[in-house]
Amino acid sequence: MKSICAIDGVRAWGIKEGKYGLSLIAAEGTVAGVLTRNLVRAGPIEAMVKRIENGRLAGVIVNSGCANAYTGELGYQNAEAMAVIGAEVLGTTPDLIGVASTGVIGRHLDLDLIRRQAATVAPHLTSSEEAEGRAARGMMTTDLAEKHALIRGDGFSVAGLCKGSGMIAPNMGTMLAFLYTDATVEAPALQQMLQQAVNRSFNRVVVDGDTSTNDIVLCTATNQRGTVDPASFSAALETCCRSLAIQIAADGEGATKLIEMIVSKAPSEEEAATVAKTIIESPLVKTAVYGEDPNWGRIIAAAGRAGVVFNPNRVSLFSGEGTKRVPLVRDGTIVVDLAAAKASMQGKKVVFELELNAGTASATAWGCDLTEKYIDINGRYTT
Amino acid sequence: MKSICAIDGVRAWGIKEGKYGLSLIAAEGTVAGVLTRNLVRAGPIEAMVKRIENGRLAGVIVNSGCANAYTGELGYQNAEAMAVIGAEVLGTTPDLIGVASTGVIGRHLDLDLIRRQAATVAPHLTSSEEAEGRAARGMMTTDLAEKHALIRGDGFSVAGLCKGSGMIAPNMGTMLAFLYTDATVEAPALQQMLQQAVNRSFNRVVVDGDTSTNDIVLCTATNQRGTVDPASFSAALETCCRSLAIQIAADGEGATKLIEMIVSKAPSEEEAATVAKTIIESPLVKTAVYGEDPNWGRIIAAAGRAGVVFNPNRVSLFSGEGTKRVPLVRDGTIVVDLAAAKASMQGKKVVFELELNAGTASATAWGCDLTEKYIDINGRYTT
Repeated sequence: MKSICAIDGVRAWGIKEGKYGLSLIAAEGTVAGVLTRNLVRAGPIEAMVKRIENGRLAGVIVNSGCANAYTGELGYQNAEAMAVIGAEVLGTTPDLIGVASTGVIGRHLDLDLIRRQAATVAPHLTSSEEAEGRAARGMMTTDLAEKHALIRGDGFSVAGLCKGSGMIAPNMGTMLAFLYTDATVEAPALQQMLQQAVNRSFNRVVVDGDTSTNDIVLCTATNQRGTVDPASFSAALETCCRSLAIQIAADGEGATKLIEMIVSKAPSEEEAATVAKTIIESPLVKTAVYGEDPNWGRIIAAAGRAGVVFNPNRVSLFSGEGTKRVPLVRDGTIVVDLAAAKASMQGKKVVFELELNAGTASATAWGCDLTEKYIDINGRYTT
Repeated sequence: MKSICAIDGVRAWGIKEGKYGLSLIAAEGTVAGVLTRNLVRAGPIEAMVKRIENGRLAGVIVNSGCANAYTGELGYQNAEAMAVIGAEVLGTTPDLIGVASTGVIGRHLDLDLIRRQAATVAPHLTSSEEAEGRAARGMMTTDLAEKHALIRGDGFSVAGLCKGSGMIAPNMGTMLAFLYTDATVEAPALQQMLQQAVNRSFNRVVVDGDTSTNDIVLCTATNQRGTVDPASFSAALETCCRSLAIQIAADGEGATKLIEMIVSKAPSEEEAATVAKTIIESPLVKTAVYGEDPNWGRIIAAAGRAGVVFNPNRVSLFSGEGTKRVPLVRDGTIVVDLAAAKASMQGKKVVFELELNAGTASATAWGCDLTEKYIDINGRYTT
């Protein structure tokens, strides 16, 4: 198994017909969820608010192709109707069915299609590597790769799958993640740990800074193992989220390189994250990485506008990792060897570390380079 | 005259030799200035802090090709040395000489070059259309067009020239603007009015969200006319800044279209500006404009993540201006005619108006589309 079907009590399947897909995941348990912070929230997101408050689900139904976003009161009613369809095929009640959608904004759900696809998918629900793959593909839009993660803890496992090409696809930039654990965790504790894990993973991925109306991360604990050490469970949950988040960054539209930006020796983790995200969002940094150009001035200039206080004349900046790691700036003095710096930026993953020398906290953010293909995909698309 | 040489008491000239240019502008008067808010500030910016506090200048010396940024204490000393050079050729004292630089970050000024270029330029200082053009070109880097503005008020004039390809050029994304008026204005009042005009013009231009280490806007009042009505002077100053700001947006690297984003019926001007800037900064919106794709969902989704409270189900959205203006969304209901909407996005200028229906304030922001050429320029560049 690569992800969720490694968790006892999880069954899955999915279908993809042209642009329209549907996935079902059946798993009874305690639930925590993190929803989009965009003020414009899709129908299914509105429908999830009280379900997450209740803290229990028996399964989820997810469709791709239509986001059911900016569809008003009817959109909310359609999301509830989708939960009814999910409840019928899974043999439970609609309040125990999670709903999520991804696709074009401003169009209403085709409930007949969803009913037909759900009826097709449900009989196949099973726990296998093929099943988790089908579920992953049923919710993909412009994603080029399935995204799975599985973390084995001491007496428990945490697994997840997600879709997302970095909140950037034409009209369908949604990030959906479904995590499962066999550990026994109460809903309030799960919610707190999920929120922290999301803050340190999905919320540190920037492809183009756009936040979808439909983003959701759900974690279901099937409670089939005993209770677990909160610290080790929390760490496993964060590792699982981070793995998925990095897969999203690497699959950013048009991306050729994953960028990992570490900001260390910062006054606080939050400030380190702010600086890291500001750098990784900079189109100048993203295009420099694309061109394998060690244009370190752009990194320091982006850090300077992040709104975090540090002394620019005390920072150090490194490029690359392992044996290819080279200093660009040390304690405010330029020490770059341009040829070595350029060499450190080759390959599929580019790592920078900026030491602010203003404290002891650190944070990492992930992004991707900006290429002509991003323009082509998003500019040539016609509504 | 197209700009500053229409103001009594202003003389100018400039030179451009390959990547390296130098401009001199002589004009005695009261001075106000707005400096970059980037924490990483170039040497010349540090040197300007006390000169703006003093509120008087006799002239400015500006070089292009080297930003003298991230150059530490020596960078500051070199900026002061450049002021000494300017004072020598203009026959005044260094504390009355403004300095500004634009170009590559992390390299020291070539003071010999600056001394030679200043000696070459100074004898030509004069007040003519050719002179203001030479001064504009001497400070250009990747700009494709000179940027001039001239506003005639009731008994006074305000004029300016600036350089800037939208804070986005490789290593030299600086915005420099020099404004002149013949009106009599005290320094504190001029500072206040300039700050407001900059907030409503240059601070509402977004090409890629990067803020230069070297940005400066200076306004000199030569006091050769009488005192003026503060309201009408303030309006003229803002109009002049806006004209220059729009020219910067239109000259954004790789841009094919100017985008004007109006946000109206907002709770406050500041909130309207925040929403307008968030939209205009969105790569999804910028690429949609490039492709003339009326992808209005991207505009509303960007507005939703701006951090301003409004009811998404009450907004209206329009595209185009004049006879081509068409509604896309009205009071939360989708009314778009895709063909008409697409037609409204053709041409060199694309206008959107988003009515939040949450108040009476409004604000406008300006930007440009995002094209393959931006990637080419910024990705292919090699440090």
